[in-house]
Amino acid sequence: MVGSTVECPDMIYASGFKAPDPVVLLINGRQKYLVVTDLEFGRAMKQTSGVRIYRPDMLGIRSAERKLPACWAVALMRELGIKKVSVPSYFPVAIAEGLRKAGVRTAICMTELFPERAVKQPDEIARIKQAQQAAVFSMRAAISIIAGAQIANNKHLQHKGRSLTSETVRKVIYNAMIEHDCMEADIIVAGGAQSADPHMKGFGPLRAHEPIVIDIFPKHMEHGYWGDLTRTVCRGAAPDRLREMYNAVLHAQSKALLMVKAGVQCATVHKAASHELEKRGFETGCSGTSAEGFIHGTGHGVGLSIHEAPSISLNNRRLKSGNVITVEPGLYYRELGGVRIEDTVVVTRTGWEYLVTCEKKLEI
Amino acid sequence: MVGSTVECPDMIYASGFKAPDPVVLLINGRQKYLVVTDLEFGRAMKQTSGVRIYRPDMLGIRSAERKLPACWAVALMRELGIKKVSVPSYFPVAIAEGLRKAGVRTAICMTELFPERAVKQPDEIARIKQAQQAAVFSMRAAISIIAGAQIANNKHLQHKGRSLTSETVRKVIYNAMIEHDCMEADIIVAGGAQSADPHMKGFGPLRAHEPIVIDIFPKHMEHGYWGDLTRTVCRGAAPDRLREMYNAVLHAQSKALLMVKAGVQCATVHKAASHELEKRGFETGCSGTSAEGFIHGTGHGVGLSIHEAPSISLNNRRLKSGNVITVEPGLYYRELGGVRIEDTVVVTRTGWEYLVTCEKKLEI
Repeated sequence: MVGSTVECPDMIYASGFKAPDPVVLLINGRQKYLVVTDLEFGRAMKQTSGVRIYRPDMLGIRSAERKLPACWAVALMRELGIKKVSVPSYFPVAIAEGLRKAGVRTAICMTELFPERAVKQPDEIARIKQAQQAAVFSMRAAISIIAGAQIANNKHLQHKGRSLTSETVRKVIYNAMIEHDCMEADIIVAGGAQSADPHMKGFGPLRAHEPIVIDIFPKHMEHGYWGDLTRTVCRGAAPDRLREMYNAVLHAQSKALLMVKAGVQCATVHKAASHELEKRGFETGCSGTSAEGFIHGTGHGVGLSIHEAPSISLNNRRLKSGNVITVEPGLYYRELGGVRIEDTVVVTRTGWEYLVTCEKKLEI
Repeated sequence: MVGSTVECPDMIYASGFKAPDPVVLLINGRQKYLVVTDLEFGRAMKQTSGVRIYRPDMLGIRSAERKLPACWAVALMRELGIKKVSVPSYFPVAIAEGLRKAGVRTAICMTELFPERAVKQPDEIARIKQAQQAAVFSMRAAISIIAGAQIANNKHLQHKGRSLTSETVRKVIYNAMIEHDCMEADIIVAGGAQSADPHMKGFGPLRAHEPIVIDIFPKHMEHGYWGDLTRTVCRGAAPDRLREMYNAVLHAQSKALLMVKAGVQCATVHKAASHELEKRGFETGCSGTSAEGFIHGTGHGVGLSIHEAPSISLNNRRLKSGNVITVEPGLYYRELGGVRIEDTVVVTRTGWEYLVTCEKKLEI
């Protein structure tokens, strides 16, 4: 692997070393090798264990090539006498080409590089829990400011005499995340019709009697594990249709969670959510043009990536004890907006456990 | 190009579209093409102009391949009858392989994909300035809390009766950045010997009479442009050696800035800083094992990446009017720690201009 480890979950997972500059990481059986810049060498020696650390000059790299990780990769293969490597599917094509030209046979690993990443160890679960606690704390801060808002004549929410916007609530969330050593910019606070698009961050004034979707996914700044939590709230009385949607999503989440257990196929969990929504008269499945109803999968794995395996959708992969997954059905209608309820849970042999609990209530 | 545009500055630059999910971006002469997920289609139509937007189904992609950007890329080539493409050096090897297997000749672009990114347009300069203003605001907040700290008997700094740590100051910076719509986790607040490593984030109690290096690089959350600013301060009287280092770095920065002008070689700027430091008796140049003195380049370009072209180091590339660069000489000694002073400036035809100014003072 070649790259900045802070940008590559696989590399952080395998090396345990956070480096902003590119590094080369090679795994040969149980031995790991890391090539780092002169600047990072001291820190790499201190912060890793059981990894052989090289600087470019230790591989006989000339000064002009000292800054080119492509050259480090070739030099490391030469140093270790390795003629054949497997690289991840996202490996940079130029460096793969360089290895091939240097006579190293380069196979592409088309599946997950570390399937074991999907099964979390106890220390990993503890870390995800820290991020999830930050999510719950931030969610409460966000909901509290919305619940305390005044409703103006034009239905706009007011906080301390000013219009309460998605941006204001997002800043409350940012500050709460930071208080808990987490950070992430693209937090969703989307009101009304904006919430009909599951990826819309949300902007501008929030209004009463409309859904407000709050999706918080904090990344812990020290260790890099994520949490993920979504709630939908409505300031003041919710329209009947919104209440129906909310109850449907709430029940769909419960039905999906009822299926979660080691050995169960991901599709089974997704279908449990879909069937509950269909039973209540809502559309499911994402067809291209008129995407309304339940238009995404039921969930995804969470760890060093915010979206990772297993995908809780129409696939026959089986859940394993130690998977950490979200269960987050949603309904989206262009006029009315969206409802999504999401929790992150640990799969166990007999079922599942919340990482952290957080209240669910539509009208506030 | 294939990937999440929010993770790829080239893709944001070329498409103007922020997407967390992978997209395929093709440029053919003046026409741009974007393939996005069903979920992103509506937003892509709204938020781009002059770009032809496709959903996978519009390219005849079967349901099973709907989530595979590799298939989108192949289908897009087929749709447009394109038999030859050039991809960036960081292009994923597996997708390059897929294109080749589909009969598309794939050349690798080994240089910068958009050399024009280094020359900033007025709207880009305005955006970098916003991020730099956030940096200055955060720097003042950080310095203010250090300046106001009490000095305990053991030289530890105290704030409101508690030990003032790197972590505390970093939180002050985080909150100030957020107030200015910016974010970044890996801000450096490194005191004493920790500051001898230019990449050390810093942790634990801060002490008086030692250097504290504060390196703030905020990324604007809306448009993604960066700022970059470093100051070194010392609470209480600085030891003579530290004062000498500080003055040397301050003068080295001035000498380097004196050389900055369109048409000047980057090496000329770097050498001006190095010579000033050498003249004052400090080591320069980064040799592998005993890296002390001035051990890094003088600066780098700033834009949609925190580090981008041009590199202000020993290379003969010439500065251009509209380059936005940092000028940041530093000195690092294992026992005493480091000193770095960094400003971000715009290169002009006749010299340079600060984006935003910020006081420089060692003893506070």
